[in-house]
Amino acid sequence: MSNLELPVLDQGDAAACCSPMVREPLGEEAATDLAKMFKALSDPVRLRLLSLIASYEGGEACVCDLTGPFDVSQPTISHHLKVLREAGLVGSERRGTWVYYWVLPAALAKLSSLLQTPGAAAVPAKGAR
Amino acid sequence: MSNLELPVLDQGDAAACCSPMVREPLGEEAATDLAKMFKALSDPVRLRLLSLIASYEGGEACVCDLTGPFDVSQPTISHHLKVLREAGLVGSERRGTWVYYWVLPAALAKLSSLLQTPGAAAVPAKGAR
Repeated sequence: MSNLELPVLDQGDAAACCSPMVREPLGEEAATDLAKMFKALSDPVRLRLLSLIASYEGGEACVCDLTGPFDVSQPTISHHLKVLREAGLVGSERRGTWVYYWVLPAALAKLSSLLQTPGAAAVPAKGAR
Repeated sequence: MSNLELPVLDQGDAAACCSPMVREPLGEEAATDLAKMFKALSDPVRLRLLSLIASYEGGEACVCDLTGPFDVSQPTISHHLKVLREAGLVGSERRGTWVYYWVLPAALAKLSSLLQTPGAAAVPAKGAR
């Protein structure tokens, strides 16, 4: 299981911005870091790639499995994977011929916590699940 | 309380994409809609504006209170607020001289749910709060 080898995110950074943004205003530095992560999520192909990797059995996917579902070229997929990796949202490792990708759960959890709203938690939206 | 007047988001749309993306791959249409919302969050000033509005007492802020903390011009702030409104992240209303803004909790909750990871929920990051 490659999960045992997942790189550990900078906990100091996570601590600096994991509070929900509705509770206290974001500082300039935290906002700059977070904006980069959201920018990586601002493309439909990257969002689908991330979701595809995350929902893969075992939590990781070979790059050879990631081109099929998309109507874009292999170099474009590689570019998008690089953006996701540079934003700290996925990890990767070459094993033999192929590169394998996995989602970094702490990064997603950080963004998820940031967007949590106390009101929405207290009153779940009808039909939201 | 303006919370009583919050517009209701399209529940069909929310239902289509509120599952965590780690559970099942995102569809093309949902990814396109979500990417637009993440794009609105991909700018540090917009993130700070959103956070400032959300953490304002009463949950809403007059545009007259939103320029001070930023080192950018009033038209730039207005542009960013327009992007947040068009992405469905904030609502607004003119009352007399000023426009008031509030965060739409269902929109933030939708993105937060999407990014939830079962692993991260089971093993909270040290010092994350």
